[in-house]
Amino acid sequence: MTEKNIIDPTNTNLKALFLGDKGENVDIYKRILNRMIDEHVGWRQNYMPQDLPVITPQDRREESFQATVDNMEQVFNVLSSRLRTDSLPWHSAGRFWGHMNSETLLPSIIAYNAAMLWNGNNVAYESSPATSKMEEEVGLDFATLMSYKNGWGHIACDGSIANLEGIWYARNFKSAPLAIKEVIPEAVEGKSEWELLNMSVDEVLDILDAHQDKYDEIKERTARSGKGLEKLGKWIVPQTKHYSWLKSADIIGVGLDQVIAADVDHEYRMDVEKLEETIRNLAAEGIPTLGVVAVVGSTEEGQIDRVDQIVALREKLAKEGIYFYIHVDAAYGGYGRSIFLDENDEFIPFEKINDVYAANNIFQGENHWLTREVYESFKAIESCETVTIDPHKMGYVPYSAGGVVIRDVRMRDMISYFATYVFKKGADIPALLGAYILEGSKAGATAAAVWAAHRTLPLNVTGFGKLIGASIEGAFRFYNFIDGLEFDVNGKTIEMHALTRPDFNMVDYVFNEKGNTDLEKMNELNEEFYSYASYAKGGTYHNEFITSHTDFAVPDYGNSPLEFVKGLGFSNAEWEKEQKVTILRASAMSPYAYDEKVFAEYSEKIKAAIQSKLEAIYAE
Amino acid sequence: MTEKNIIDPTNTNLKALFLGDKGENVDIYKRILNRMIDEHVGWRQNYMPQDLPVITPQDRREESFQATVDNMEQVFNVLSSRLRTDSLPWHSAGRFWGHMNSETLLPSIIAYNAAMLWNGNNVAYESSPATSKMEEEVGLDFATLMSYKNGWGHIACDGSIANLEGIWYARNFKSAPLAIKEVIPEAVEGKSEWELLNMSVDEVLDILDAHQDKYDEIKERTARSGKGLEKLGKWIVPQTKHYSWLKSADIIGVGLDQVIAADVDHEYRMDVEKLEETIRNLAAEGIPTLGVVAVVGSTEEGQIDRVDQIVALREKLAKEGIYFYIHVDAAYGGYGRSIFLDENDEFIPFEKINDVYAANNIFQGENHWLTREVYESFKAIESCETVTIDPHKMGYVPYSAGGVVIRDVRMRDMISYFATYVFKKGADIPALLGAYILEGSKAGATAAAVWAAHRTLPLNVTGFGKLIGASIEGAFRFYNFIDGLEFDVNGKTIEMHALTRPDFNMVDYVFNEKGNTDLEKMNELNEEFYSYASYAKGGTYHNEFITSHTDFAVPDYGNSPLEFVKGLGFSNAEWEKEQKVTILRASAMSPYAYDEKVFAEYSEKIKAAIQSKLEAIYAE
Repeated sequence: MTEKNIIDPTNTNLKALFLGDKGENVDIYKRILNRMIDEHVGWRQNYMPQDLPVITPQDRREESFQATVDNMEQVFNVLSSRLRTDSLPWHSAGRFWGHMNSETLLPSIIAYNAAMLWNGNNVAYESSPATSKMEEEVGLDFATLMSYKNGWGHIACDGSIANLEGIWYARNFKSAPLAIKEVIPEAVEGKSEWELLNMSVDEVLDILDAHQDKYDEIKERTARSGKGLEKLGKWIVPQTKHYSWLKSADIIGVGLDQVIAADVDHEYRMDVEKLEETIRNLAAEGIPTLGVVAVVGSTEEGQIDRVDQIVALREKLAKEGIYFYIHVDAAYGGYGRSIFLDENDEFIPFEKINDVYAANNIFQGENHWLTREVYESFKAIESCETVTIDPHKMGYVPYSAGGVVIRDVRMRDMISYFATYVFKKGADIPALLGAYILEGSKAGATAAAVWAAHRTLPLNVTGFGKLIGASIEGAFRFYNFIDGLEFDVNGKTIEMHALTRPDFNMVDYVFNEKGNTDLEKMNELNEEFYSYASYAKGGTYHNEFITSHTDFAVPDYGNSPLEFVKGLGFSNAEWEKEQKVTILRASAMSPYAYDEKVFAEYSEKIKAAIQSKLEAIYAE
Repeated sequence: MTEKNIIDPTNTNLKALFLGDKGENVDIYKRILNRMIDEHVGWRQNYMPQDLPVITPQDRREESFQATVDNMEQVFNVLSSRLRTDSLPWHSAGRFWGHMNSETLLPSIIAYNAAMLWNGNNVAYESSPATSKMEEEVGLDFATLMSYKNGWGHIACDGSIANLEGIWYARNFKSAPLAIKEVIPEAVEGKSEWELLNMSVDEVLDILDAHQDKYDEIKERTARSGKGLEKLGKWIVPQTKHYSWLKSADIIGVGLDQVIAADVDHEYRMDVEKLEETIRNLAAEGIPTLGVVAVVGSTEEGQIDRVDQIVALREKLAKEGIYFYIHVDAAYGGYGRSIFLDENDEFIPFEKINDVYAANNIFQGENHWLTREVYESFKAIESCETVTIDPHKMGYVPYSAGGVVIRDVRMRDMISYFATYVFKKGADIPALLGAYILEGSKAGATAAAVWAAHRTLPLNVTGFGKLIGASIEGAFRFYNFIDGLEFDVNGKTIEMHALTRPDFNMVDYVFNEKGNTDLEKMNELNEEFYSYASYAKGGTYHNEFITSHTDFAVPDYGNSPLEFVKGLGFSNAEWEKEQKVTILRASAMSPYAYDEKVFAEYSEKIKAAIQSKLEAIYAE
């Protein structure tokens, strides 16, 4: 039996892959987990069976031994009590519509637990041959997911660090042509500094390929030297700029002064026309664009930037001698690409996609979700240089597991810390992974957890696509249910309004009193609702409906919320005065809520819970 | 019962805290683990018990359900086979003397497994109240361990990232006085640029305290702006510069061109006299010293820099207007400080320490290890700004768990991404930890694992000190056993020589043929021995003795190995010709090898295994 055909992907039942909102599958979980423990212990016992156990039965009878076990049990009394007191009930099949927490895949939980017993450190192959191989395979899974034919990837500790690695790549690549000019001027003969600062990554790679013997000398003169960072130009991030992007620009030395916020439109996607204007204006001043961050699944809205339009813009501007790096922050949405790949890893043509979904029962009802825009955005990732993808978000793997994907395996040489001879082309596993990535020590167990997820649910439409589809369908059930829902509270009518039609599986919404035109009052209502629907006032365990919240304020969002705010009946003047709108936010990750019957049951419970929270608020 | 007295620390038996080299304690492990799973499932069941389970018995009988479980079981067949085929038997009580892998604490393994079921993300308090509190407590444990009265700390994904955070602090603090001058010139009136670049962190903190209203404006003008990085001066790391330090300087934008390698002496500790010379020479040229990295437990040798001398040098130079930041890379050795703290967290006076060790059975035999130099080095950490400490190394916590400690909680404001009003003074927990640290999403489970380790073994001499002591005693047994050991192989005598007397628990050594004066030949022998004592040739599972190896080559080590090499009978000319010495390396982390009887048994087995490997080499 080869590993290729260990699973039959045709008939996956998602309900078998989670513990269950009431722990329904605890028998399966315990059986496999305990078996893995036994197999680990058997391995220990059979390494040099002639060596007797070092801990003897007599040792175990010692008073101090028992006292120490008692201490440990006491620590677990406290741990269990604290976890049960202060954790979030995201496991609920229909009452948790908040932060990005959810059920995670049973195979990943068990794989982590099991691999942890071997405690490999994937920083070095020597320390972890088994899990290093798994990480290499996971990295290639990521590359295939992005349709990178010669790509490479690895696991990162989180999305912030993965994004930091993306900007590290961008910074060092942008500076490379200037370094090449110093070391082998003939390779870039006749190019002006402007032209050097606008060379594509492919052009740079080709030159480096032809001059491998000079590679180290060139690298020494790139941005890693610490010189000339201010020359490299502007780093453009969406206006909704997540603080992690500011942090990254700070850390990498590019600096906040070089960060430009690109406006987002009223659907919270980057406004590509304005992006073009910005880049052209910069170019007119002689300032290069270091790179652009396209977001696939924004943290607050789950929205998806028009990656296709950004790529098209780059192609257009390239003809005019302007080139910028594109990093895709698909920390949240990256796994979504699996819903577009067939079993041969080919991107499914748009015309055929509903047939494929129907044939594979991707959606229980009709496909209400997919638009051409979203489809093309996901497709165009194949043309970008680097991608962040977090298994601990839509990969349904426990925290923490992030990921980085690069379009061309040769790129990793630009940031590596060993001479190029240490690794060979292709799929060889670096002896010291830590020399090719931003981090150092890393748990082999994380690789095992992600690997087990990918092996159980392959990254295509019949595997992960099914889970992504379930999540999106659940989000749309919630969206259709709440948008326009009304509550009668002490004679007042409270309405619910969704922020936008979701691009993915996140649903943002607000409550407003019918007829209210005071924006501050609406913001207070939603702030108050949040406190009742979170740990703040409602507690985490006895709370019948839980959500999260955020503020869209002018310093970060500009006027992008204005259209929504005006649609609710507020005036321009109100917006000018209040400068923000408080939004409630549901990351609809539940693997159960897609089901019509399940949702029907919970929608009544949600309605009742909201009713009682609103009544409590209005009774204050 | 309060949490303060949940354990009785007087009588800890280390053997109760590990799974055991043959899985002897698997019953305890399974009992507690399964209990934690049951308590988690009970929690799920009792959240809204009126909600029926979403996965029904009928669902579980569906063919697709069973097919999916079968798929999962198959994936675990592969996972188990791969882990057992290609992992390292570091669990052995006496045969593994290699890489930094070892048994980890049972309470940490179980706590991780348990907390993972709740899957908190400590980036935000909202997502993980229970484990966020644990991380806060762990951070304060770290600060107490370093004798920081007003310190703060947090968990990081690994030591490289923790070190990067250290240099991030240094970079931004070094640039702060220039920023202060721009915003509130009167606060630094009369100071020259040189004086501004040589202000202490305390001076900067005091000014910031007095001008909280201007803090954000000042921060904007620090190095986070991306401007003026080249002014900040040189970053000095030990000559043995671990590649992670080069990587950090690259990433942070300080740049490799600003990194200076400080010579190490023949004991692989930073040569503080030469350090002084370097800093004075730089000052004479008008170049500031951004900071100095002191290493406590070097990766390759386990050696401990004379932190006390570096601190004393700083005090001396401060009188001459020179100030540099000190970051302590105690990723490996940080937990070692627990062997110096009494139960009131006071640093034990040197004169009393052997009495304390005797009273608490820290060592089975005499204390052969502790020198005044090592004692003073550990003590002086209290005067440094930031420290890296990795629970996944000498904290015996599974990968990956690193840590950062800062001397003064106020420092975190310098790198944070939110206005200062978001957190209050003291021990309050930030609502968004991600805004105060380098990383973003982070597993709550890691915090639980470290927390459980610290609660079971407090960070003082009767807690972790006992485990650190056991490890050091095991290292010294190995050191005393192998140093000078001889083997008769085909009529030739092969000698073993230790590199240095260990500062901590790492033992480096070489084999050499008696009378051999050809350094290349010795290097080949050790390289060859490594391949037989590692996955390379000997395999990982059927190998009776496993070690790791490294090269000390002139580009990284200069002539620091020369004294050792000459002591073995090689000439200066040989060293000049060969330019490196290949070293075998044992990170002696076993919690069992301290025991005289255990070591006596294994030393015979080690000898036999080495004999047979040498015979195989000489038979080639």
